[in-house]
Amino acid sequence: MSAPRILLAGHGSVGKAFHELLHETNVGRVVGVIRRAGAWIDENGVAPGGTLLAKRQHVSVVDALDKLRPDVFVELTPTNLQTGEPGASHIRAALERGIPVVTANKGPLLRHHDALVKLAREKGVPFRFEGTVGGSIPVLNLHEFCLVGNPVTRIDGILNGTSNYILTRMAEEGLGFEEALKEAQELGYAEADPTADVGGHDAAAKLCILANAVLGVRVTFEDVRREGIQTISAAAIRLAEKEGYAIRLIGTVDAATKTASVAPRLVPHGDSLNVRGTLNVIRFTTAHAGAFTISGKGAGGRETATAVLSDVIHALRGRSR
Amino acid sequence: MSAPRILLAGHGSVGKAFHELLHETNVGRVVGVIRRAGAWIDENGVAPGGTLLAKRQHVSVVDALDKLRPDVFVELTPTNLQTGEPGASHIRAALERGIPVVTANKGPLLRHHDALVKLAREKGVPFRFEGTVGGSIPVLNLHEFCLVGNPVTRIDGILNGTSNYILTRMAEEGLGFEEALKEAQELGYAEADPTADVGGHDAAAKLCILANAVLGVRVTFEDVRREGIQTISAAAIRLAEKEGYAIRLIGTVDAATKTASVAPRLVPHGDSLNVRGTLNVIRFTTAHAGAFTISGKGAGGRETATAVLSDVIHALRGRSR
Repeated sequence: MSAPRILLAGHGSVGKAFHELLHETNVGRVVGVIRRAGAWIDENGVAPGGTLLAKRQHVSVVDALDKLRPDVFVELTPTNLQTGEPGASHIRAALERGIPVVTANKGPLLRHHDALVKLAREKGVPFRFEGTVGGSIPVLNLHEFCLVGNPVTRIDGILNGTSNYILTRMAEEGLGFEEALKEAQELGYAEADPTADVGGHDAAAKLCILANAVLGVRVTFEDVRREGIQTISAAAIRLAEKEGYAIRLIGTVDAATKTASVAPRLVPHGDSLNVRGTLNVIRFTTAHAGAFTISGKGAGGRETATAVLSDVIHALRGRSR
Repeated sequence: MSAPRILLAGHGSVGKAFHELLHETNVGRVVGVIRRAGAWIDENGVAPGGTLLAKRQHVSVVDALDKLRPDVFVELTPTNLQTGEPGASHIRAALERGIPVVTANKGPLLRHHDALVKLAREKGVPFRFEGTVGGSIPVLNLHEFCLVGNPVTRIDGILNGTSNYILTRMAEEGLGFEEALKEAQELGYAEADPTADVGGHDAAAKLCILANAVLGVRVTFEDVRREGIQTISAAAIRLAEKEGYAIRLIGTVDAATKTASVAPRLVPHGDSLNVRGTLNVIRFTTAHAGAFTISGKGAGGRETATAVLSDVIHALRGRSR
């Protein structure tokens, strides 16, 4: 059997890391990389480091899908939480052509979850998006494969590592919010404009995807009651710590009430939701076996690339969500 | 499609709970329950409460397998860590007949993992045993379905809820070992003979299954360096707590060194391995994405039954480990 052929759109930190990981693990070969700045196409495989040497072409994703007919299309262009584009159009084009799709791009799922899942079902084509939530942590696959026969009734979690890093440093070092944010920016954990992280937008987007994909609760981004961590003071954290609590930015969605929120909450020391630093954590409350809590690295190119790779393998086995 | 037909051997706490859960969820019907004290057979379905009313027959597992040809055989007879019997013979008989097998019985896996897995492969038949490790926590399925393409290099965990309950109570209430054990026995968490739990035998058995099934490390029960919690004093726990640590009975298996141990260890407060009470926790260290930690209810009839049910659903879909 010849190696599966992968078309990759987007070559940022996750795209590059996925490209390298695929190369190392021999799961398949990348026959095309499409970027805004130009594409690399090579039927013999575009090597991760070789992209810089290869000749750039101007090829659109749609043209590449038609020309290459890859075994899996991997969508990793930059996330746009408002429109979901260009990812949504790329994914739609692949599914319409009967080509399996794997993505870590939150925008398309946030804005078009139902329509894209429906299209994939109609075409009988795998469409997987583990990498959109929890970085390396298998959240959607845990639900799909490990909790069969045991419905999830509620999800709570820390879905943004940047804000958790800031809250952890404020508690551990007595820093103010601005100081801790500056440190996070210097370490590369926070972007120059940190709004999406500290304002809870990123966590709210992931919570929406979980609500729709795991709980079947139709929650839009605008439905999520959202509060960030910008107004948390060092004094508030000190007081909470003294009473045995940490302050954490917790996302919660409940199947019974069909409500979702992201807000700072008091979490007791010793509670499994109380993870530190850049970790993410997700707690599934189930109908038949109480709660499970899973934690791990919630971000990072390499980490998210492992989620993408596992989905590519599932897609090659024909597994659809 | 008619409902899948299940043959069940063993009707203890997990067997009864699985029988009820299957009935509630409509995944299939139990056409036979085989116990040492007698069997109930009914092609129309043996109802969970109805067993007491039905006529008992004397039928062996092998005769029932031949007569009923079930879609899945569920092996839940009492565990024997020394011989693996009678579970091992039951499982072998089913696999030889090409009948898918699901079990939560540690004995057969501990003693015959390789031979049984090989037989299942040769026959092309699903053989699943999620319920042997971690109660309700999806440990084997997490590895099989969620960490594809990302090899596990090391496992650490708290695999026995009884000993964890005792250590937690010693720390929280300043109890001595004997007092905390007595409390655990009164609450039904510990058996009259607590050796398997507090001596680390139960944890060592589960660790062996993980070593073989997840890491592919050939470790026998006798290879596990094992130390229990009987000699942990209240003073030792106080001292550890004062320095910011809890004492926990940790099982560890490492793919590189091919060594396995169960022993009391110091775990920092705030570490995700530091779960309390009867919880279990497992940490997978992976090649490409750091560590994941998953915790949940590690024991209980209903909880373990959810693991069995999820395996039955996978087996009906033809999925083999």
